[in-house]
Amino acid sequence: MKLNDKGLLIVLSGPSGVGKGTVRDALFAMKGHNLVYSVSMTTRPPRAGEVHGHDYYFVTREEFEENIRAGKMLEHAEFIGNYYGTPLEAVSENLNAGLEVVLEIEVQGAEQVRQKMPEAVFIFIAPPSLDSLYNRLRRRGTESEEVIRQRIEKAKREINLAYKYDYIVVNDTVENAADKILAIIRSEHASVKRVLKNYKKMLGVE
Amino acid sequence: MKLNDKGLLIVLSGPSGVGKGTVRDALFAMKGHNLVYSVSMTTRPPRAGEVHGHDYYFVTREEFEENIRAGKMLEHAEFIGNYYGTPLEAVSENLNAGLEVVLEIEVQGAEQVRQKMPEAVFIFIAPPSLDSLYNRLRRRGTESEEVIRQRIEKAKREINLAYKYDYIVVNDTVENAADKILAIIRSEHASVKRVLKNYKKMLGVE
Repeated sequence: MKLNDKGLLIVLSGPSGVGKGTVRDALFAMKGHNLVYSVSMTTRPPRAGEVHGHDYYFVTREEFEENIRAGKMLEHAEFIGNYYGTPLEAVSENLNAGLEVVLEIEVQGAEQVRQKMPEAVFIFIAPPSLDSLYNRLRRRGTESEEVIRQRIEKAKREINLAYKYDYIVVNDTVENAADKILAIIRSEHASVKRVLKNYKKMLGVE
Repeated sequence: MKLNDKGLLIVLSGPSGVGKGTVRDALFAMKGHNLVYSVSMTTRPPRAGEVHGHDYYFVTREEFEENIRAGKMLEHAEFIGNYYGTPLEAVSENLNAGLEVVLEIEVQGAEQVRQKMPEAVFIFIAPPSLDSLYNRLRRRGTESEEVIRQRIEKAKREINLAYKYDYIVVNDTVENAADKILAIIRSEHASVKRVLKNYKKMLGVE
């Protein structure tokens, strides 16, 4: 029995290198859910094989800034000269259609979502240790030792913001993490603050 | 990875006739949990086949009242001349041993637990409709139409207390309800308020 007519906005965030993308992929590979992934908008050029509307909405800098000005971005940030962000409209449409919308975003973006949609479910994907984070960043092989060190320091600052989230899911194994996120989604659909009003209406008890 | 050293106290409550006992049995029949059931204490005489320490702790009225006076009851109530209640000590020992302790108690008892152990997880087992509750109570065949009517009125008053709980689990099917409760338990073990302190300690991030 479903007492929520609307879907949940599930915000997956956490330090760079923690494996947010891998956890999200594992989550979507699981059965028995009603999840849609929110496609981000960006001004960076598409890489080989990337499809507009699937991997990203690829737009010009002018279009992106027009979206920001018009209040059409749920969150956005600039990295290395390019904008990245979440268009609000698709999120709202999917939520109204009863789908759970998953955002996989940086900690900074999660902060913006928290201000605009505090009813979202905020999940901090956390590394099992700082060493494991370091090893993951090194394995990527794309960054210098100095940049990795800076990322670890940034991760520590972000972990200090974890108190603002609803849940901490340690990415010890990807399956474990994805499984926990599904449990969180089921559980949130039973939370009193989300369902009580509809439940009482359904029963005719006021 | 388990960040909670202590188990959770899971309070299952809800109106009489909603099927709390059946849901609890289904919950314990499921795999992959760490649950123990808290055995209640009562002054009513054992029925045929009931075992002391398994079904209930059967005690005298004097012993029960001595336990109340000594602050050894987590909650208690009197029904039709007999005391029923939850001894505190066994609950605390099991929680400290990392087990999840399940209480299946009346709404009145849940109120007492809320005052003594607000960190417990409060789950309101709710009927899918008032008709279904009526039918369940009739099927028992033990009560007059008038008593059933009174129970329905009491159920309505109890549903109006559901806002004090953390979750509402509608007992549409027993399997669904038990499954949701397991999800809630998993989810609560990831809740920031329960794990953040231990997580940061584990990481050495303060």
